[in-house]
Amino acid sequence: MKDKVRTAVVGLGGRGQSMQDALLLTMDNVEITAVCDVYEDRMMNGVRSVERAYGKTPVHSTDYRDVLDPAVADAVIITAAWEAHVPIAVEAMERGIAVGMEVGGAYSLDDCWRLVHTYEKTKTPFMFLENCCYGQIEMMVMNMVKLGLFGEIISCSGGYCHDLRSEITRGKENRHYRLRNYLTRNCENYPTHELGPIAQVLGINRGNRMISLVSMATKSRGLNAYAASHPDVDQSLVNAHFNQGDVVTTLIKCANGETITLTLDTCLPRFYSRGFTVKGTKGLYMEDGNCVYLEDDFAGQEFWDFSPQYGNASRYLEKYQHPVWEQYLREGIRGGHGGMDGLVYDAFIEAVRTGTPCPIDVYDAAAWMCITPLSEQSIATGSAPVAIPDFTNGRWCSRK
Amino acid sequence: MKDKVRTAVVGLGGRGQSMQDALLLTMDNVEITAVCDVYEDRMMNGVRSVERAYGKTPVHSTDYRDVLDPAVADAVIITAAWEAHVPIAVEAMERGIAVGMEVGGAYSLDDCWRLVHTYEKTKTPFMFLENCCYGQIEMMVMNMVKLGLFGEIISCSGGYCHDLRSEITRGKENRHYRLRNYLTRNCENYPTHELGPIAQVLGINRGNRMISLVSMATKSRGLNAYAASHPDVDQSLVNAHFNQGDVVTTLIKCANGETITLTLDTCLPRFYSRGFTVKGTKGLYMEDGNCVYLEDDFAGQEFWDFSPQYGNASRYLEKYQHPVWEQYLREGIRGGHGGMDGLVYDAFIEAVRTGTPCPIDVYDAAAWMCITPLSEQSIATGSAPVAIPDFTNGRWCSRK
Repeated sequence: MKDKVRTAVVGLGGRGQSMQDALLLTMDNVEITAVCDVYEDRMMNGVRSVERAYGKTPVHSTDYRDVLDPAVADAVIITAAWEAHVPIAVEAMERGIAVGMEVGGAYSLDDCWRLVHTYEKTKTPFMFLENCCYGQIEMMVMNMVKLGLFGEIISCSGGYCHDLRSEITRGKENRHYRLRNYLTRNCENYPTHELGPIAQVLGINRGNRMISLVSMATKSRGLNAYAASHPDVDQSLVNAHFNQGDVVTTLIKCANGETITLTLDTCLPRFYSRGFTVKGTKGLYMEDGNCVYLEDDFAGQEFWDFSPQYGNASRYLEKYQHPVWEQYLREGIRGGHGGMDGLVYDAFIEAVRTGTPCPIDVYDAAAWMCITPLSEQSIATGSAPVAIPDFTNGRWCSRK
Repeated sequence: MKDKVRTAVVGLGGRGQSMQDALLLTMDNVEITAVCDVYEDRMMNGVRSVERAYGKTPVHSTDYRDVLDPAVADAVIITAAWEAHVPIAVEAMERGIAVGMEVGGAYSLDDCWRLVHTYEKTKTPFMFLENCCYGQIEMMVMNMVKLGLFGEIISCSGGYCHDLRSEITRGKENRHYRLRNYLTRNCENYPTHELGPIAQVLGINRGNRMISLVSMATKSRGLNAYAASHPDVDQSLVNAHFNQGDVVTTLIKCANGETITLTLDTCLPRFYSRGFTVKGTKGLYMEDGNCVYLEDDFAGQEFWDFSPQYGNASRYLEKYQHPVWEQYLREGIRGGHGGMDGLVYDAFIEAVRTGTPCPIDVYDAAAWMCITPLSEQSIATGSAPVAIPDFTNGRWCSRK
C-alpha cells in the first residue's frame, strides 16, 4: 500500500488548474509529480502552483506522452478537453498508469470500446470522475432507494441545465473546447452528470442495462441571440450557424423496463439544475422543487399546498443522509461543487493507493459516455431509435 | 343572437353530473333541455337535478341519438366515456347541433379526420373543452409569451401527472372507462391538458404545426402494487396484466424547430402536476417549483438560492395576470378546477349564443387528440418516429 499516490495532471484549463490548486495539492495521499497542458502558459501556471505548494518543480511538458511515465507517476488525472480524454486514458492504461478521467460524452462508440478493451487487456485501474454521483442529494436518494422507500423504481429523469452561453460564446478568447463542439455537433453532449446517479439508482451494468434511445433537438437560437445582445462577445457569432440545438431531449429504455429522460439545456437563460427525478411505486424525489413525496407520508394528498412542501427534501436529509456524507460533514467537506469533487477524487486516489476496485469503472464510463454519439445518430436520422451496446458483453446480468 | 342556448348533456358520470350541477345549471345563458347516459340510473340522476333546478323535466334517453334533436337542443355537451366522444360529436354536427366536446385522446387517426371532415362539411360549431387552456397560470404565461418576455420560444414540456390508481383500479365498481383503457392500450392516453396550452404558446395550426413524435413507455407495476396493498380493491387486479406502462414520455418536433416533451404519469403515488414548462431565449416558466426566471430579473444568477424563488410566479401574476382572469376574479370565479371549467364552458356557450367562432376548434382537437394513437404506434414499434398529420391541409401556414 502506497503512502502517497504520485500523480500527473494532464490538462490545466479552468477545471484542471482549479482541481489542482483547491483539491489535489491539499490532499495528504497525493503528490503531484508531473503537469501537462498543450498550451505552454497553462502548463507553466501548473508548474508554479506545484512549486508554491511543495517547493520543488514537477516534471512538465506540453505533450502528455512525456508525463505518462511510470518512473514519475502512479496515476494520472485527465482534465483536458473532451476529445483528448480517451486517447490520453488509453495511453496511460497501456503504460500501467492508473487513470482518473474527468467527464464528458464520447465522440464515437469506438472511443468507448477502446477504453473497455484497453482496460481488459491491461487491468490498469480506471475511474470515471463523475462528481455528481457523490452529490449530497443524489446520495441521500440512492440511500432511500436502497432502503426501498420509493418502492420499485419505474422512471428517472435528469438534465444538464446550465446557462453556458457566456462560456461557449467566449470560447475563442478562452480557448474553450465547448465552442467548437457547439458549432459542429448536434447531440446530448454532456450526459453523465445526471445519468451517473440515475444509472446507480437503476443498477446499470449490475443486473440492468440501457438498451435503446431516441433523441430530439430543437432549433439553435440561444447563442446567436446572446452574442447579439453582448457586444463584448465575438460578433461573428451573431450570425454563425451553430449545429447544436439549444435543447436536446433523450429517452432511454432499460432492460428491466424503466425509462430515463435526459435534457441538455445549456444555451438559454436559466438557473442551474440537474433536474434529478426518481419515480417509484411508493413515491418520488424531484430536484425541481427539491421535494420528496412518499406515499406513506402524504397518503391521500392528491393536491399539495406547495409552499410548505417545496424544499422538503431537507427534512428527509436529517433522517436519510448517506453514511458517506455523514462522515464527510463531520470531518469537513473539501473541494468544489459543494464537496462532490473532494469525494470523487478521494475515492479514486484511495482505490489506487490501497489497490481496491474503482467504484465508477470503465464499463460505467463506456455506458454513460456512449449516449453522446448515439444521440447524435438518433438526431441525424429524425429521432430514430438506436440500440445501446452492452460493453460488459453479457456480464451485466450477474455483476454486482 | 339567442338569449339562452338550449343544451343537451350526454354522459352523466362523475364529470358530466358535476358539470351539470355545479356549472351548467347555474349559467344564465344555458337551459338544459335534454340529458342522456347509457346507464339508466345516471340518466335519472341527471333528470332529477334538472327538475330540482328548473321545476320541469328535460327530454331524456339512454340513446344519444334521441336527444340530438334540433327541436330540443342548440348545443350538446359531450361528457361521455372517451371512446364515445367522436361518434356523438360527428352525429351532432351532422344534425346541426353545436358540439362542446370534453377532452381525451383519440383512438385512431380516422377519429380525428372524421371530426375535421364532418365539421368542414357541416360548418356546425365545434369546440374542444380543454379547460387547462384557461388555467390562471397557463394564461399568465401565454400573456407573457405574447409580450415577448421569454423571447423566442424554444422548448416546452408538460404532463398529466396525477395519481389515478384509486380511480383506475376501482373502475369496475364505478363503471369508469379508464380501467379498460389501462388494461388494453399502451399510449399517451390523455395528452391534451398539458398540450393544449403548449400548442397555444407555440402557435400550433396558426403558423406552426407538430410534425413528428416518438414515445416510450415504462413497464407496468403501479396498479398491481396498488391493488396488492388495498384489499378493498378488486383483487383480480393484483396479478392482472395491464398493457399500459406506468409512465409514458413523448417527444414532439414542431415545424418551426421547437420540441415538446409530454409525460403521462398516472399509476404512481405523487402530487398532482401538469409540469407546464416554457423555455425561451430570454427566460423560462416552470410549474414544478412554480417559478419564473427572466434574464432581465436574474442577470448573472447562475445558481439560485431556491427557497425564496420557488413559487415566485405569484409575483409575476400581479403584473402579468391575463386580462380574462383579471375580469374573472373581479366578477367571481365559477365551476370546478380553480375556475378553468367556468371559463371554458362559458367560451363555448357564448360562441354558440353569439354565432362567433369557437376559440379551440376542430383542427386543434384533431391535432392534440391524434397524439394518442400516434404514441401507441411509436411505442408498438420500439419508439420509432411517427409523422403527425396536418389536419388543416396546409392552411396552418397562414391561419391566425
